[in-house]
Amino acid sequence: MNYVVALDVGGTSMKGGLVTRSGEVTPFAGHPTERERGPAAVVAAIRAYVGELAGHGRARYGGEPSGVGLAVPGIVTSSMAVYSANIGWRDVPAEEFVPGDVPARLGHDVRTGGLAESVFGAGRDTADFLFLPIGTGIAGAVVVRGEPYGGVHGWGGEIGHTTVWPSGEPCACGQIGCLETYASASAVSRRYERRSGRAATAKEVVTLAASGDPAAREVFDEAIEALAISLGSYTLLLDPSLIVIGGGLGEAGAVLFDPLRERLAARLAFCEPPELRPSALGVHAGMLGAALLGWQAAGEPGVGADWTPERLLGAH
Amino acid sequence: MNYVVALDVGGTSMKGGLVTRSGEVTPFAGHPTERERGPAAVVAAIRAYVGELAGHGRARYGGEPSGVGLAVPGIVTSSMAVYSANIGWRDVPAEEFVPGDVPARLGHDVRTGGLAESVFGAGRDTADFLFLPIGTGIAGAVVVRGEPYGGVHGWGGEIGHTTVWPSGEPCACGQIGCLETYASASAVSRRYERRSGRAATAKEVVTLAASGDPAAREVFDEAIEALAISLGSYTLLLDPSLIVIGGGLGEAGAVLFDPLRERLAARLAFCEPPELRPSALGVHAGMLGAALLGWQAAGEPGVGADWTPERLLGAH
Repeated sequence: MNYVVALDVGGTSMKGGLVTRSGEVTPFAGHPTERERGPAAVVAAIRAYVGELAGHGRARYGGEPSGVGLAVPGIVTSSMAVYSANIGWRDVPAEEFVPGDVPARLGHDVRTGGLAESVFGAGRDTADFLFLPIGTGIAGAVVVRGEPYGGVHGWGGEIGHTTVWPSGEPCACGQIGCLETYASASAVSRRYERRSGRAATAKEVVTLAASGDPAAREVFDEAIEALAISLGSYTLLLDPSLIVIGGGLGEAGAVLFDPLRERLAARLAFCEPPELRPSALGVHAGMLGAALLGWQAAGEPGVGADWTPERLLGAH
Repeated sequence: MNYVVALDVGGTSMKGGLVTRSGEVTPFAGHPTERERGPAAVVAAIRAYVGELAGHGRARYGGEPSGVGLAVPGIVTSSMAVYSANIGWRDVPAEEFVPGDVPARLGHDVRTGGLAESVFGAGRDTADFLFLPIGTGIAGAVVVRGEPYGGVHGWGGEIGHTTVWPSGEPCACGQIGCLETYASASAVSRRYERRSGRAATAKEVVTLAASGDPAAREVFDEAIEALAISLGSYTLLLDPSLIVIGGGLGEAGAVLFDPLRERLAARLAFCEPPELRPSALGVHAGMLGAALLGWQAAGEPGVGADWTPERLLGAH
């Protein structure tokens, strides 16, 4: 048929959609992942949601989906969800997420978003870049020679847990001074509350910093400096042409990008900083990347090369 | 014919050799690079040395070399030495390094060493590892999916200038707190002299540290901690199966590897540290990698797959 089912499975909710061969997207309201019910219930909930989306597809396009693509957290191969600390599953074959016998393909959540940014998003004109969504946590998709790279076991891209200040604050992961513990949205919010005694979201802290609130400025400055240190080291190690910033903080605009550009340049003495660019696909990157996986599962890996963010996201 | 000319061009000396299709190596005494005489003189010296080695080859094998491979510093493509701050050249085509019309191929010095370690050295059983020679300076070869990766402009692998202590010591490169400024052989020697008032080579500092000299212990401990921080971040970002340590300090043995393994594991809370292994090819890695480039230039990229360090280095 002419469409695939695409699903982005996060720790709290899953976002699904139908995507045709020509890049027509029908997004659906998210469902809760309900990981507190245990891994078997999550697998059953995903399978049910895939079935529900296929039902919408039959109604709309008059036939079964050609494939199913799923972006999931943790350690993943294209045919197996190997492990997720977040959800708790181990070794779930791709077929278990799909009712019936439609071919399915899995991908790592962040790298699947990076795949979408690479094929038709902010990285479509380059083969070597970092996709860095900054949200509750921070993880990256290292795109090398045109393909997201996950290393030997699939742990690659954990830039949020690279060390920024070796004798700094303890991170929830058990390490010391990780990027994530200074620069994620939840870190910015938590650190502001600790310093000021007032609760605020990361977006509010950014606005407060811009309006001169001293505690907000300190916290935001430290987040920017942490990002600059980490992205400087990334640049020296992997010499990317581009860093694509996504997630909630990636939508902050010039208030984030301007000081980050300046600090990153200041950290690099002998090489040019790469361009910084906001994500083109925003929160839809994972689901749209999953659609590419769905078309790969269908045996049509070339589908998606001519999609554009405007066409994909225009209707939303 | 049955052999290539291979040359490893460093800042102070160049090491050359003849290498046959079956991996028989004839190494020659190094020549000074004489970079103080300027880039044109260095190019002429390299061309003369290649001619001299080809003369040895004619005498020994009765014909011209099949190809020439050269490992050079700076920014390099396979056909052009684009830039080297160290030597001062810009845009020197590969043919200028070679008298006559023998086909030639260039490679980046550290990545060419990494290529040799990858094909028949310490990394021959894995596709994804870091080759980290620790000498006067520190640079790495990031091997990804079986190939050394230099990024977009060829600056990749500059792990020596990734930040370890963001408010630490100034590095000669103009940045602050770089790995190299704590952990290179020259840094260990310089920092020991500054702390103790006594001159010592890095090897001597390692021996002094083992025998309990307090200043040597401090300096060596900080070098190990800097390496652990940097390799921890590398592991989280690129999830390698292996880190191959070369250069002078790489030959220090258990006195380096044991504490480094321990500190690296301590820096990683949620993923296993990769194996640490000494270089198999030592100071010959660059020249042997250049031999692979020479065979590639000759149109025989498959040559080298069956070479072994024992056969290559056995006669030395």
